[in-house]
Amino acid sequence: MNTKKVISSLHTDFYQINMGNVYFNDGIHEKKSVFNVYFRKLPFGNGYAVFMGLRRVLEYLKNFHFTDEQLHYLRALGFKEDYLSYLSTMKFTGTVRSIAEGEICFANEPILTIEAPLIQAQWVETAILNIVNYQTLVATKASRIRHVAGNDVVMEFGTRRAQEESASLWGARASVLAGFDGTSNVQAGFQFELPLSGTHAHALVQAYGDELTAFRKYAETHQDCVFLVDTYDTLRSGVPNAIKVAKEFGEKIKFKGIRLDSGDLAYLSKEARKMLDEAGFTEAKIVASNDLDEETIIHLKMQGAKIDVWGIGTKNITCYDDPALGGVYKLAAIENEEGIIEDRIKISSNPIKTSTPSSKNLYRLYDKDNGHALVDVITTIDEKINENEPITLFDPTHTYLEQTFENFTVRCLLNEYVKDGVVIETYPSNEQIKKFNQDELTCFWEEIKRTQNPHNYYVDYSAQLYERKMNAIKVEREKIQKKK
Amino acid sequence: MNTKKVISSLHTDFYQINMGNVYFNDGIHEKKSVFNVYFRKLPFGNGYAVFMGLRRVLEYLKNFHFTDEQLHYLRALGFKEDYLSYLSTMKFTGTVRSIAEGEICFANEPILTIEAPLIQAQWVETAILNIVNYQTLVATKASRIRHVAGNDVVMEFGTRRAQEESASLWGARASVLAGFDGTSNVQAGFQFELPLSGTHAHALVQAYGDELTAFRKYAETHQDCVFLVDTYDTLRSGVPNAIKVAKEFGEKIKFKGIRLDSGDLAYLSKEARKMLDEAGFTEAKIVASNDLDEETIIHLKMQGAKIDVWGIGTKNITCYDDPALGGVYKLAAIENEEGIIEDRIKISSNPIKTSTPSSKNLYRLYDKDNGHALVDVITTIDEKINENEPITLFDPTHTYLEQTFENFTVRCLLNEYVKDGVVIETYPSNEQIKKFNQDELTCFWEEIKRTQNPHNYYVDYSAQLYERKMNAIKVEREKIQKKK
Repeated sequence: MNTKKVISSLHTDFYQINMGNVYFNDGIHEKKSVFNVYFRKLPFGNGYAVFMGLRRVLEYLKNFHFTDEQLHYLRALGFKEDYLSYLSTMKFTGTVRSIAEGEICFANEPILTIEAPLIQAQWVETAILNIVNYQTLVATKASRIRHVAGNDVVMEFGTRRAQEESASLWGARASVLAGFDGTSNVQAGFQFELPLSGTHAHALVQAYGDELTAFRKYAETHQDCVFLVDTYDTLRSGVPNAIKVAKEFGEKIKFKGIRLDSGDLAYLSKEARKMLDEAGFTEAKIVASNDLDEETIIHLKMQGAKIDVWGIGTKNITCYDDPALGGVYKLAAIENEEGIIEDRIKISSNPIKTSTPSSKNLYRLYDKDNGHALVDVITTIDEKINENEPITLFDPTHTYLEQTFENFTVRCLLNEYVKDGVVIETYPSNEQIKKFNQDELTCFWEEIKRTQNPHNYYVDYSAQLYERKMNAIKVEREKIQKKK
Repeated sequence: MNTKKVISSLHTDFYQINMGNVYFNDGIHEKKSVFNVYFRKLPFGNGYAVFMGLRRVLEYLKNFHFTDEQLHYLRALGFKEDYLSYLSTMKFTGTVRSIAEGEICFANEPILTIEAPLIQAQWVETAILNIVNYQTLVATKASRIRHVAGNDVVMEFGTRRAQEESASLWGARASVLAGFDGTSNVQAGFQFELPLSGTHAHALVQAYGDELTAFRKYAETHQDCVFLVDTYDTLRSGVPNAIKVAKEFGEKIKFKGIRLDSGDLAYLSKEARKMLDEAGFTEAKIVASNDLDEETIIHLKMQGAKIDVWGIGTKNITCYDDPALGGVYKLAAIENEEGIIEDRIKISSNPIKTSTPSSKNLYRLYDKDNGHALVDVITTIDEKINENEPITLFDPTHTYLEQTFENFTVRCLLNEYVKDGVVIETYPSNEQIKKFNQDELTCFWEEIKRTQNPHNYYVDYSAQLYERKMNAIKVEREKIQKKK
């Protein structure tokens, strides 16, 4: 695991440090607490999300510590010596259960849970949400694009428009793991062992001042040639020059194709295809780029565009049409004065904003006959689901909606990645994450995977969890009533 | 300048390295070249943009170098030893002229220019755009929010929803320098010396399971108290408990106010204001947060909301309604075989996408009588503007629109920050950047600063630059004609 560019322990909201100080002064800072990460709404109107960010979260937690310089800064902010002294040796000693990177997930289910001394669990909230929110968002966007691109090659080209450095790096990784074939970002390739893609820009043609010369010079240096043909005039200059150089160099190069980066991609790709075919280059590919996303790909395909490779930039890396995932991190349970873990809830007049108490688990039920995913089930931590018995589940918001399932297999989605501060040593490879993501997607109905108006997948509560939530609401209501 | 978390030289697009290799093999890699950074469209429908990102660009260029590990990676990608050997000692030796951080800028004007050996100028394109695009975008968004907030306090609370780590850090800095009063991100405060803000979250109340206890515990540790009052019931529980604790603790704390994070902010703030006033806490402030931006602030103000402090998260840090600035980096001139700098242009059927050739300068003309900014003028590099003579300027796209200005003062907007690879030693302080930004904004008419349908500010060409562009277009057209 690359731990060179690790996130600072000060990458947190100031209020976390203030709350930590209250807990410390009150002596409750080491009480065991349980927090859940979940989001309330699927992004892009998609039918599912692709979880991503765990690797970075683990790197962060593994390296969580304070330097003298950081403590000095906190001292200057007014924090007292006893608190600073405690922080000086504080590491992350908690337990993290999470769904896997590449996992298909849905709104309102716990995708990552932290069980840790209160002060630690509180402190790490901000960084965990910052990481998981963006990486899950971009993985989901990339998955939509992969879905409509079918078996075409899809490349991530978004660095220059990404929201700063780390979005371009981790966004490139998330996109590739969620289905893209490679990225143009060399640092991302280096850091995460991702395949790279890219040949040349308009600047090469402009630097030589002459397109034909530029293509020839490129071919003199590089075996694999994809010529960018729209610097001056795609059909009158670019494509003919590409063909001319491909013929001139013959076997000396691999003429892989051309790239279109402006103009009417449907028309130009069809005309360019004809020209390439007529010149005998039927294997040459047409790469297209220029503000593409799943919507433009669908339209271009409908128009019969002859595009083989999609270069995807701005719209994917910035998650343009829905640029924030609203993931939250909520206290679900905490150790009470007798040392017993007690449920906690946050009540809201908006039902979706009322949190769900207690330490949880998450299961996915699959139809035994066809392997299709049926429902995700949120349970209390110790519940096991018996595949041989029918199970009755409750809709989390409209709990009068209950359904009974039978003839299913079951998989536990949350697994332990950190145990008492010790991070697991072996982490899945890129190939494993990609394959897991693709395999899991095949278990979902097409109706859930379509990019427009997908069918709603079920995420339900077990009877036990439902009861725990109702109890917690009752307890809180009674407290408020008592005060009046 | 903090150079600890510096951007890697591999943070670039793969095609830059491929093009560098072509230039190197052809022996033109050290030819002096001139590139301009500009964007084609103002974001958010705003009337101006606030430039940001220069500090990070300078850190990157100053530290540009290759480690053995990076060269090893490039070797594994197939690059040859002569090229790698050249890269092993390559530093940035060029000259950078830029507008200042905090400067007001507009579409299609050169905001940063690089004059460097071709291979270097090409290589650094990706990182420069990645930095400048996001930081300028978020500074512009923050400036809009500051504009509608008037003299209210505005805080940046967006880290958990930012697009990964570096967006939250540099985005916090950009927001503060463009008008916000502080940020919740502690690392940003530490790294950039920004004021911090934040007290407590719902989790504190939940951890104690009792709001009154939580507020008391907070007050026992912290002098300055802002209580978050919406964990259970804002008006029936939160505000009364805040008032109760404020009275109990009296002079022992500074009861600064309350924070509302959900519900109807207009209604709740008005009711809470009444309750605070009746309890004698007329100085206590009401802080509001929850997906706010310039649009919601305008509406809340229209509804008479009693909000004193705005906590701005998701919408600002992700630039939610326009999450990418389309800044580009175009070759404007290059040394020819005789060693003379020659103009270069990229022609497009779309007039806005036709680049403007030659090394440039950028001036702003101000009305001598009232100090108002009149027009920005893009000139060739050596042109001076004489304040005592009328000047005739051309609209860049509709060049038949010409206008003559007189009775003006003039300011050159582009200044040298790197000279032959040496980065300037003193950089403006946060206070200087903030003040410069605010002062410069006062020179623009309100009609340009309003957040909806602003008036269009003029960016024109000098007669000389206009002529150079027409010549370059003619030359390129002739080349294409000849080939037919």
